[in-house]
Amino acid sequence: MTLRVAMIGYGFMGAAHSVGWRQAPRVFDLPEQVETAVVVGRNRAAVEEAAQHWGWAEAATDWREVIARDDIDVVDLVTPGDSHAEIAIAALDAGKHVLCEKPLANSVEQAEAMATAAERARSRGVRAMVGFTYRRVPAVTLLRDLIAEGRIGRVQQVRAAYRQDWLVDPSVPLGWRLQKEHAGSGALGDIGAHIVDMTQFVTGQPVRAVSGSIETVVTERPTVGERIGFTGTATGDTGPVTVDDLAIFTGRLDGGALVSFEATRFATGRKNALTIEVSGDRGALAFDLERLNELRFYDRTAPGPLQGFTTILVTEAEHPYVAAWWPAGHMLGYEHGFTHQVVDLVRAIHDGTDPHPTFAEGLSVQRVLAAVEASAADRSAWTEVAAP
Amino acid sequence: MTLRVAMIGYGFMGAAHSVGWRQAPRVFDLPEQVETAVVVGRNRAAVEEAAQHWGWAEAATDWREVIARDDIDVVDLVTPGDSHAEIAIAALDAGKHVLCEKPLANSVEQAEAMATAAERARSRGVRAMVGFTYRRVPAVTLLRDLIAEGRIGRVQQVRAAYRQDWLVDPSVPLGWRLQKEHAGSGALGDIGAHIVDMTQFVTGQPVRAVSGSIETVVTERPTVGERIGFTGTATGDTGPVTVDDLAIFTGRLDGGALVSFEATRFATGRKNALTIEVSGDRGALAFDLERLNELRFYDRTAPGPLQGFTTILVTEAEHPYVAAWWPAGHMLGYEHGFTHQVVDLVRAIHDGTDPHPTFAEGLSVQRVLAAVEASAADRSAWTEVAAP
Amino acid sequence: MTLRVAMIGYGFMGAAHSVGWRQAPRVFDLPEQVETAVVVGRNRAAVEEAAQHWGWAEAATDWREVIARDDIDVVDLVTPGDSHAEIAIAALDAGKHVLCEKPLANSVEQAEAMATAAERARSRGVRAMVGFTYRRVPAVTLLRDLIAEGRIGRVQQVRAAYRQDWLVDPSVPLGWRLQKEHAGSGALGDIGAHIVDMTQFVTGQPVRAVSGSIETVVTERPTVGERIGFTGTATGDTGPVTVDDLAIFTGRLDGGALVSFEATRFATGRKNALTIEVSGDRGALAFDLERLNELRFYDRTAPGPLQGFTTILVTEAEHPYVAAWWPAGHMLGYEHGFTHQVVDLVRAIHDGTDPHPTFAEGLSVQRVLAAVEASAADRSAWTEVAAP
Amino acid sequence: MTLRVAMIGYGFMGAAHSVGWRQAPRVFDLPEQVETAVVVGRNRAAVEEAAQHWGWAEAATDWREVIARDDIDVVDLVTPGDSHAEIAIAALDAGKHVLCEKPLANSVEQAEAMATAAERARSRGVRAMVGFTYRRVPAVTLLRDLIAEGRIGRVQQVRAAYRQDWLVDPSVPLGWRLQKEHAGSGALGDIGAHIVDMTQFVTGQPVRAVSGSIETVVTERPTVGERIGFTGTATGDTGPVTVDDLAIFTGRLDGGALVSFEATRFATGRKNALTIEVSGDRGALAFDLERLNELRFYDRTAPGPLQGFTTILVTEAEHPYVAAWWPAGHMLGYEHGFTHQVVDLVRAIHDGTDPHPTFAEGLSVQRVLAAVEASAADRSAWTEVAAP
Repeated sequence: MTLRVAMIGYGFMGAAHSVGWRQAPRVFDLPEQVETAVVVGRNRAAVEEAAQHWGWAEAATDWREVIARDDIDVVDLVTPGDSHAEIAIAALDAGKHVLCEKPLANSVEQAEAMATAAERARSRGVRAMVGFTYRRVPAVTLLRDLIAEGRIGRVQQVRAAYRQDWLVDPSVPLGWRLQKEHAGSGALGDIGAHIVDMTQFVTGQPVRAVSGSIETVVTERPTVGERIGFTGTATGDTGPVTVDDLAIFTGRLDGGALVSFEATRFATGRKNALTIEVSGDRGALAFDLERLNELRFYDRTAPGPLQGFTTILVTEAEHPYVAAWWPAGHMLGYEHGFTHQVVDLVRAIHDGTDPHPTFAEGLSVQRVLAAVEASAADRSAWTEVAAP
Repeated sequence: MTLRVAMIGYGFMGAAHSVGWRQAPRVFDLPEQVETAVVVGRNRAAVEEAAQHWGWAEAATDWREVIARDDIDVVDLVTPGDSHAEIAIAALDAGKHVLCEKPLANSVEQAEAMATAAERARSRGVRAMVGFTYRRVPAVTLLRDLIAEGRIGRVQQVRAAYRQDWLVDPSVPLGWRLQKEHAGSGALGDIGAHIVDMTQFVTGQPVRAVSGSIETVVTERPTVGERIGFTGTATGDTGPVTVDDLAIFTGRLDGGALVSFEATRFATGRKNALTIEVSGDRGALAFDLERLNELRFYDRTAPGPLQGFTTILVTEAEHPYVAAWWPAGHMLGYEHGFTHQVVDLVRAIHDGTDPHPTFAEGLSVQRVLAAVEASAADRSAWTEVAAP
Repeated sequence: MTLRVAMIGYGFMGAAHSVGWRQAPRVFDLPEQVETAVVVGRNRAAVEEAAQHWGWAEAATDWREVIARDDIDVVDLVTPGDSHAEIAIAALDAGKHVLCEKPLANSVEQAEAMATAAERARSRGVRAMVGFTYRRVPAVTLLRDLIAEGRIGRVQQVRAAYRQDWLVDPSVPLGWRLQKEHAGSGALGDIGAHIVDMTQFVTGQPVRAVSGSIETVVTERPTVGERIGFTGTATGDTGPVTVDDLAIFTGRLDGGALVSFEATRFATGRKNALTIEVSGDRGALAFDLERLNELRFYDRTAPGPLQGFTTILVTEAEHPYVAAWWPAGHMLGYEHGFTHQVVDLVRAIHDGTDPHPTFAEGLSVQRVLAAVEASAADRSAWTEVAAP
Repeated sequence: MTLRVAMIGYGFMGAAHSVGWRQAPRVFDLPEQVETAVVVGRNRAAVEEAAQHWGWAEAATDWREVIARDDIDVVDLVTPGDSHAEIAIAALDAGKHVLCEKPLANSVEQAEAMATAAERARSRGVRAMVGFTYRRVPAVTLLRDLIAEGRIGRVQQVRAAYRQDWLVDPSVPLGWRLQKEHAGSGALGDIGAHIVDMTQFVTGQPVRAVSGSIETVVTERPTVGERIGFTGTATGDTGPVTVDDLAIFTGRLDGGALVSFEATRFATGRKNALTIEVSGDRGALAFDLERLNELRFYDRTAPGPLQGFTTILVTEAEHPYVAAWWPAGHMLGYEHGFTHQVVDLVRAIHDGTDPHPTFAEGLSVQRVLAAVEASAADRSAWTEVAAP
């Protein structure tokens, strides 16, 4: 069988998803053929160029028409978060499997509606998946597996951060990611979402309460003239930054452990430093996205004089996803997670199982972020995360 | 002239201070001779052994008698925090210069009385200094100097942690450091104090408000039989741990920047990982006590393609304190900070200047810690630090 | 215009080259279309599967027929080294542009014939390129550029090594890479070739003499039954290993500097550790393929107290090749070099320029390796490399 | 009993040895008292200042008189290598235990005479020890112990280097270390000696043959006016550098494994980078003196997906020498090796055993260095090391 895919949106995430769709069937043995059928965007010229450049058979400008087509099986949604709910729900209701880029939505209400739609679709064999691709970096999957095997025992604390510095320059203009109406939130929703999801994923425990602070370090920025690449050119005017630059919060996991979270775009010199360290009573595991082929493991059950953090190069055939790629010691990069995401989605569709992260998991991340905002508005007092 | 020193206390800190007194006059050119005259402790046999072993001319068991002696110039206080106030105030009032191991005291009230006594003594030319020796690790002093020079511009955020793992083992017994009446607090007061002091020291800004959570991960432990070394042997009984194992808190500096703090004895695999990273609008600086000869500097003003964190090996003659030691690339260790502390104290006494950290600085750390405890008792809500 | 490519061979290198051909036109703006037209191999079933899997339009079993076709513009040669000369020369003489995987050939004689053929073809506008893809890891290209800009001044010494450990296990069977008749040599020709090429590339200086030792650590291994993946299954028999496991040699660059080289498959724990450090009178540069997104730069002209190795994350838009990929801090991997190789080849064909490394450069590497073998056979005495 | 020590010489090494004598009896439990009785030097004023500064009871200018005294038990020799043989032999013959700084001597002949004298003295219960203190960095001792326990199996190759950069600056003047008549050789004898000794120490195998190259990169330097610190001031004149700056050599261990050695003072940015990596058939061990509290261990017998280099922080009470110092995670530095050296010497004297490294071991290092020079003079051809 062949899965015909429509991708809606074509920004930076569209490029990454395109690599995933292109590479997955060539590098892995997939149980279904994949066809990159249509890419959809509002600007006809731009979307046609994207189609041509990234290898999509067709370009279209109306997502509703595309969703209505019989010859589309999968909708891959890479637009900004404010449009996710409407499109994803429509696609699911139209019987299309949906891969939705994170964050699931810009509000808990939207995310709830999406999770409900996904649940409804599920009963008809339609799959929904959220694009937290970092789960599928081999070292992160291995980290999760080792916790699940009990290698570090009971989780006693977690330290997670996602640090970037692209806003340190005050002349970076006011792109959509800095406007609440488009992005929902700033560092919190964009990169804080990743560390909340990763923490819940690797520990297998939801965050049940939070205490947090959010902050906008640079409050006025030049407005955007022409949009270019990740940001755009600046005009002479300025406007208010309406999202946070920085969020620091503490979480309580369901099993009782405390987690320190930090999401920032002001960590000078840190480009994409998603770091997580999980400390258990038998060991610890640490990961850094800037060295994504490495996982560090501390084994408290090893002989005393030999204990230390072991840097595992996660490039062996026996490591998750790696056998399909290169020999040991040959590095993987950022976009490989997108390929693995496609692999798992296609397999789940074929097998009739639910690919993770589900929309319910995406919703749970949104609820944690909403609780952080509520806490921040209440002097950072501890705030319960809404129950599922 | 010769400064005759009495050291009160002789535990782990006594060993470290003894090295400082022994090495400083041999390695550095001091303006005064130093004589390690008396070590004081309650247990006659033990204190005599300490005197003999560490090179103190005399052993004594009554600190009041020693403080009353005319032939003592400096009192070095290395007892647990609950005895600091009484002894330090008596010594200052008796006209002795005082070096007091951190934390200054177990309560803000005691610390206030000590700071008042120090101020009183100061008018008579008597010096008081708190033993936050990590300020005098060359890389930390350099970090402070580079911020003061403007190398990283305006401080926009700080990330500080002190992580150890010696309590992960639930069979570690209930030593004095785990009992509120002796230690005052746990990870917060012991190692949290260091990162609060270091943050204030390197940025030159006080923490003016905090939001924090504290936690005791293992709440019952075997009671101590015989005290040996750092902890002791376990008995068959257990008792309650009355201090925190873990403190996570956010601070607001006087200049407005947020600081994420974490102090923990449950970070499996981390032995003495005091890490601090200060992010400014022109650069960043990062330090890790487990690699204490290194300082990492990111310079945003460097040519774009060459930017990155530079690992400075802080072992050059032009680095703070280093010229007195070894050639470049020859590492310093933990106890060198204690030597530098003696050097700076002796020079300050000679010059008639105030050595830092002053008791007022020690008090300000206590006030921050007290505010963290108050915040933790108030659902982690933001809490002002008492004004100086 | 469209370049129609035939790839001859389909082992591990075929997979990597296929990614390059597939990604280059999608990620970069190429001046020519690229068509992955034919893949060629002796085993019909296997080559058909490779064609289907990796996205080649057609499979063929006779390379001579393919080379004779008018509709083929480029021949990409990924067979073992013993077949390179015959095929490459035939392809060049047939007017096809040739990309030949390294090493250029198994003997200097073959390599000379190939270089001559390339020179002959060049006069007719036909291009020839050797597949030393590590030149096109962005950090390596940057390393070369910084030396060319004079950032480290005059090169005074080089330290280069390529260390793997896949032969430490004595049960690894006797694959073609361990047989002199197929592989030409062992660690020396396979991975030693990379560090010789990289040294010559980044310094811009040929190696003019060598003193070297080669060694076979495990001299007997199980013969191969079924060939699977990188090696194959073992039979009950054993046979002699006829190539080196380990080569240690010293080279003299044209400018006078000494280079220490080590190529080994017995460096336990090192998976793919190509490391190079170039020391100049104004600075130094260091690279490690196991952390291929990083380049370390030491600037002796920086202020003394700030000197150190700067770890540059080579993921900025202003770094070589990176602008076409992801935002800063998003990692590249092993196969990206193969994409960059295609990009540069296609551009050179379009522009009518010579892509590097030329066959003459590939020949120069072969001459260095031959001189190492001659030296090793002469008690490691210094031996001149044959002049170009 | 009390061991009365005379130290002959008072340069940089005198400072380091003084710390050792001062700290050892205070930090460790020694079976003998130690008295730092006399320091000897030719310049009366300078040696008196050294005595006063470093805590030696007396200063003297005639080493012969000191050796003749009945009240001296140990002679510690820290003069340049050209004077070692005469003084050490005289001291041994006078019945004094001798600690001789490395290298043992400037020629094999002198070293042989010294080893003979040590053997002669030994029969009378007099001890002789060479000051290769790096053996006593805890991580190095642990490295040796782990090999001896079989943790890495059979040694199959070794990679050792000692890289500094203090001669990259061409204005560094022509101190005694750059003159053959005083220093014997340059990088080879000074720092190459350390890596030869360490390799032989940790593997337990002598180097039996070598092939090597030596080089003087900067051949003329300013002559020294006033000697200050490690080097001195430059005059307007220049003179020839008569020792090597750089030595690259390959060794063959008694068990058959090859070793790559590099000793250089021209590795820009490397300050004191003694690195060694020993690869065995069951694992590997790696050490870097610039991170001297760390040892890296790779265990090939661990479960496949968990294999990697473990960074052991060698600061646990169960690690060699550490129990006498600080709690886990508290770093040791350069001079601690000198303290450990004193501890082991005093214990050996007390126990009537031979402390290592013996003069015979020091001689074996000299023979390896001599063979490297012979090889270098013979086109780097393999050269046997003279048999013991």
